[in-house]
Amino acid sequence: MKINVVKNVLAASEGQARANRKRLDDAGVVAVNLLSAPGSGKTTLLEHTIPALSPGLRCAVLVGDLQTTRDAERLGGLGAEVTQINTGRGCHLSPAEVARGLDGLDLSGLDLLFIENVGNMVCPAAFDLGEHFRAVLLSTPEGDDKVAKYPTLFQGADIILLTKTDLIEIVDFDVSRVREDLAKLNTKAPLVLLSSKTGHGMDEWLDWLRGRARGGVSEA
Amino acid sequence: MKINVVKNVLAASEGQARANRKRLDDAGVVAVNLLSAPGSGKTTLLEHTIPALSPGLRCAVLVGDLQTTRDAERLGGLGAEVTQINTGRGCHLSPAEVARGLDGLDLSGLDLLFIENVGNMVCPAAFDLGEHFRAVLLSTPEGDDKVAKYPTLFQGADIILLTKTDLIEIVDFDVSRVREDLAKLNTKAPLVLLSSKTGHGMDEWLDWLRGRARGGVSEA
Repeated sequence: MKINVVKNVLAASEGQARANRKRLDDAGVVAVNLLSAPGSGKTTLLEHTIPALSPGLRCAVLVGDLQTTRDAERLGGLGAEVTQINTGRGCHLSPAEVARGLDGLDLSGLDLLFIENVGNMVCPAAFDLGEHFRAVLLSTPEGDDKVAKYPTLFQGADIILLTKTDLIEIVDFDVSRVREDLAKLNTKAPLVLLSSKTGHGMDEWLDWLRGRARGGVSEA
Repeated sequence: MKINVVKNVLAASEGQARANRKRLDDAGVVAVNLLSAPGSGKTTLLEHTIPALSPGLRCAVLVGDLQTTRDAERLGGLGAEVTQINTGRGCHLSPAEVARGLDGLDLSGLDLLFIENVGNMVCPAAFDLGEHFRAVLLSTPEGDDKVAKYPTLFQGADIILLTKTDLIEIVDFDVSRVREDLAKLNTKAPLVLLSSKTGHGMDEWLDWLRGRARGGVSEA
């Protein structure tokens, strides 16, 4: 009986994720799920990304947090529609929450949807939300051992952003250790060294996004 | 039926936590559960804490991680017994895992047990492991908005350690914002500003630990 309950929940979640993806596909919107530990710079990255893509690509953001609307407030006024999803005690965004977020958006007016997941290196990795790509952030102050310690997260990444590289020497972060660990886990996803503060690496990230968006710059 | 399943799981978890605490109490061991995001400095803190408490307080560590024995390797050789618990995909330590960890320790030879939880600001907060105290770490690079965003974690803390304060100006961290958010959530737990790098705040943390341990320094 226990097994049936678990199966039903997972099947419902996967079904909802597929429905979300179809809805996005039908509207020509590409969704990028941003995953990382708390405080690795997801919101700051979006603060710099959205204006840089505008007006060629029309963006929106669904922001997941347990509490507060602080991230949505930070992202307001950038020209993208921003929806805050408060999960309460929930440790990750669910496809059902994303579906409700989609209900509030005019998808026909969008090219790119960023889904900023709850800051957590474990649980969000297990849930398909209906996104097309996963961008995983790791900030240098978190330490160069995190790829090996949280392999599921990095295994599922389509792009890996090493953020806060302006602190790389101060926090004694060894990039070669990350590369070694990734060589065992994920050799497809590019590793981009990025600093939202200095702008280093932003072009590579923006180019990656432009290359994945369907209705944007390339056809504009 | 779903409700029954969930109730049974939670009741079993709480029962195991109570059993762990009784076992520790009977042996005169005080257990401190360390909770934080990945990379906020739990292991580094213990690297500095254990030698400073020795030989007055005899310590052991249970270290939780999804994968690898890197933390246990770092903590080996400090004179404390260290047990690595790999949770696989588990997003927090469970009381059952802690019970198995206790099986491997000679509790009669211990004063303090540190339980270094999986790096995660959400799930570990929901699980009593049988500890006596919770120490919650927040590192300055994670940002000064995290208390409000992860209230459950900070609500349950007996002491809050703001770590990596040597980076406080570089990362533009506003301590007053943390104090304001804590004033609404938790006014009992002391907030200790700490840097494992410079040693700032270590005395306050060590004094707090000594004041909670039963069989240690005060009777030595």
